[in-house]
Amino acid sequence: MANDIDFYFDFSSPYGYFAANRIDALAAKYQRAVKWRPVLLGAIFKRSGVLPLMEIPLKGEYSLHDIIRTARFHGIPYRHPSTFPISTQAPARAVLWLQNNAGDAEAIAFAKAAYHAFFVDDINIGEPEQVKHIAEQLGLPAGAMIDGIATPAIKEQFKTAVELAVARGVFGSPYVIADSEPFWGFDRFDQLEAYLKNGTI
Amino acid sequence: MANDIDFYFDFSSPYGYFAANRIDALAAKYQRAVKWRPVLLGAIFKRSGVLPLMEIPLKGEYSLHDIIRTARFHGIPYRHPSTFPISTQAPARAVLWLQNNAGDAEAIAFAKAAYHAFFVDDINIGEPEQVKHIAEQLGLPAGAMIDGIATPAIKEQFKTAVELAVARGVFGSPYVIADSEPFWGFDRFDQLEAYLKNGTI
Repeated sequence: MANDIDFYFDFSSPYGYFAANRIDALAAKYQRAVKWRPVLLGAIFKRSGVLPLMEIPLKGEYSLHDIIRTARFHGIPYRHPSTFPISTQAPARAVLWLQNNAGDAEAIAFAKAAYHAFFVDDINIGEPEQVKHIAEQLGLPAGAMIDGIATPAIKEQFKTAVELAVARGVFGSPYVIADSEPFWGFDRFDQLEAYLKNGTI
Repeated sequence: MANDIDFYFDFSSPYGYFAANRIDALAAKYQRAVKWRPVLLGAIFKRSGVLPLMEIPLKGEYSLHDIIRTARFHGIPYRHPSTFPISTQAPARAVLWLQNNAGDAEAIAFAKAAYHAFFVDDINIGEPEQVKHIAEQLGLPAGAMIDGIATPAIKEQFKTAVELAVARGVFGSPYVIADSEPFWGFDRFDQLEAYLKNGTI
């Protein structure tokens, strides 16, 4: 089987959420699995000097319009969160903890549920109690997970993961690397599909 | 006939060039004409505090890769200019002068030829003598045009045009406004087409 596709995303990124809705099905169509890799855009933006989307004059206002229109265009449910953006350390570390202690499938199920909670049900997934509740609803070991994401070990693991992402060139969300080919943005999924189909682009 | 589509672009913008290759045919398919409106991204970025694409760490390197890949993906000829980016006052003012003194069709023919000269033939269209040469090849009144773009009147007209663009929310290139619906980026041409087709999106 071909290499896993690396899917980098921030839980506070609407375009990351759109990608999360589609990446597994797209990859499966071409016999690929996806490695879900949460990152922290805040930490990445600090390195690149880029402002968060919503803070850029003109672009911020346009972006909100574009996000809502893009969701509608692609038939993806979306309600803009009342608290936005948020800090996403808690759900990001939860994904890592689940990958370590439960499995990739469980981590992906949690990530999808967390994204849905934030961008459809307007639940602030930056709060550990919400993260715990989402894991409980999926029948995951929520208590152990919440203890786990507060440990220095998982914090260090996540910090290293973000640094490795930056070292691979990741500067935004979603950011997909298939083999060594990088694709930034949900709007490059057409090119990602062409690459997966043809093995070149 | 429905309203003209406003097409804002900077002559130094690769994605603007891609859009320039497609906008007229797309609009014509839905019985629309296009008003070509050159802007200066440098002046716009100063207002928004945004850095030029190529100057952003990580994003700059990715962008060059994305530009070349996007051209190939869409079957648009592209050779990255050896001098890039450039100041685009001269060709932008030439478009305005031609709109004033020759006609919209002549202005569009010039704009397409200038984009092709820059992004295919590696000609520095920031230089007035190159702008003149392009106009000559099209049988346009090149001498009068070159005198015209040096006048305070055309400089003032262009400055006002850029300010009006910013007032309408334009913050990048390409930026298309159909009726009052804004579309930033060549990668939104799918949504632009849906809007033109259905009158809503």
